[in-house]
Amino acid sequence: MEGLPEYLARKKNYINDHLIQYIYEYTDEGRLREAMLYSVQAGGKRLRPILLLATAEAYGENEIKAMAAACALEMIHTYSLIHDDLPAMDDDDVRRGQMTSHRKFDEATAILAGDALLTLSFQVIAEEENLTSEERIFLVKELSSASGGRGMVAGQMLDMQSEDKQVSLHALETIHKNKTGRLLNFAVSAGAYIGNASQEERKELVNMGEALGLIFQIQDDILDVTGDAEVMGKPVGSDEGNFKSTYPKLLGLDGAMEQKNNYVQQAQQSLIAAGAEGTMLSKLIDYLSKRDH
Amino acid sequence: MEGLPEYLARKKNYINDHLIQYIYEYTDEGRLREAMLYSVQAGGKRLRPILLLATAEAYGENEIKAMAAACALEMIHTYSLIHDDLPAMDDDDVRRGQMTSHRKFDEATAILAGDALLTLSFQVIAEEENLTSEERIFLVKELSSASGGRGMVAGQMLDMQSEDKQVSLHALETIHKNKTGRLLNFAVSAGAYIGNASQEERKELVNMGEALGLIFQIQDDILDVTGDAEVMGKPVGSDEGNFKSTYPKLLGLDGAMEQKNNYVQQAQQSLIAAGAEGTMLSKLIDYLSKRDH
Repeated sequence: MEGLPEYLARKKNYINDHLIQYIYEYTDEGRLREAMLYSVQAGGKRLRPILLLATAEAYGENEIKAMAAACALEMIHTYSLIHDDLPAMDDDDVRRGQMTSHRKFDEATAILAGDALLTLSFQVIAEEENLTSEERIFLVKELSSASGGRGMVAGQMLDMQSEDKQVSLHALETIHKNKTGRLLNFAVSAGAYIGNASQEERKELVNMGEALGLIFQIQDDILDVTGDAEVMGKPVGSDEGNFKSTYPKLLGLDGAMEQKNNYVQQAQQSLIAAGAEGTMLSKLIDYLSKRDH
Repeated sequence: MEGLPEYLARKKNYINDHLIQYIYEYTDEGRLREAMLYSVQAGGKRLRPILLLATAEAYGENEIKAMAAACALEMIHTYSLIHDDLPAMDDDDVRRGQMTSHRKFDEATAILAGDALLTLSFQVIAEEENLTSEERIFLVKELSSASGGRGMVAGQMLDMQSEDKQVSLHALETIHKNKTGRLLNFAVSAGAYIGNASQEERKELVNMGEALGLIFQIQDDILDVTGDAEVMGKPVGSDEGNFKSTYPKLLGLDGAMEQKNNYVQQAQQSLIAAGAEGTMLSKLIDYLSKRDH
């Protein structure tokens, strides 16, 4: 089997090409397009769309049928970063080592570029002719559910309200399940659906996706304590200065690592139950739990 | 036939009920839901969704099949108002006689409420079981196209860039066609599609929709000169103080009225060609061209 680094690099290029192509195809206005391309090309790892493609592939489907959903997911993720970075939200000047959208352009442009990417995500799924109408509708339903007022946006809202407050572990996990988890869940659930996995297998994969979301978040919090700012492209220790609740703060650094390892075991077990052990997904779980940026 | 005022009032109530129901059904987080409901209940005339329903009805379809698309359209319109009112965009404190979302809540909440409404618009179409998958996909395609980077958002971007500049009549119409026209076009095109109008009839209706968008905008500009602030729920004369291009500024007040009447004639002719003369649509054209708020 191809090694994970080669696999990640290959998929990332493929996804990037399609993202750029979609934006050119469906956006006329010059400055708007420039801002959309700027954020999409800001050097993300494309973990979410790669997870979607890898899941479809684990069940024998090729990436052509899965590409629109994968890119739609990355567009949602990108729009959420643009809006989260705004002065009224997290007020961040730098993201992935480069200026955030409202710093590079202006606030109005950043708001509109986010709105356009969100809209485009549903458009590219609806326009994907390698999927049947039933498949496209399933994906629009799932993606809107994962990213809307009972998903990512709700999580962001909860996160804003918990700022400068010490919250319980349970409340923290509710925030992350919505803010980060639902999109990761969409990645595996959409990939499994496109790959024609059975209902039973999809259920197990959703469990895996849930664990993966928490692994992802715990590692984020751990990196904010132990990470290398150079490697990460953003300052570390930013959680410490404020009252933001994190796993290391609630459980200690060792406790957070242990909690993460529990979720890794859970995720690998769900993967076995879903009949997808030994696929690229298994390597992805390990990779996400050990990533250094 | 029922009179237009009764028809408008009846449809408005029906649409309001559904909008509220959809928001409750698909939004969990309390403050987010509150903000979405606040803007949706801010007393809009519901012209866009009523136009959609009236078009479907003109071709014999009842409103049940058309309601999801009608509400989706109003959600897009509402989200665009919330985002347009933000300090980084038009910086408006009052809309329809009440505080704008970011003044009533805060900027972050307003941004997220807009994002959630935009997402919900596609969700309610995808979930509508009175439509086939093909019909739902058609509507998602059309709505995303009308509202995204080649439609409404592009128009908003052009509008921001033309601020404090005197632009040509042609440039002004390009802005309005995108910013206002595309959604009105969606109303008639989606209504005609749901009502099973023929390709030929739909083409004529799209022409009507285009004229209607311009009528709508010219009347807006005229009201800013001649309107009654009390009736309109917003200050008049706001275009005069800045360098914003308007029809009365470019053509004079009489010229603007004449231009509007040309478009009214065009719209009525297209309606006849579409075989929908004598329906509620004909009354709606007159109503929109003469409205006082």
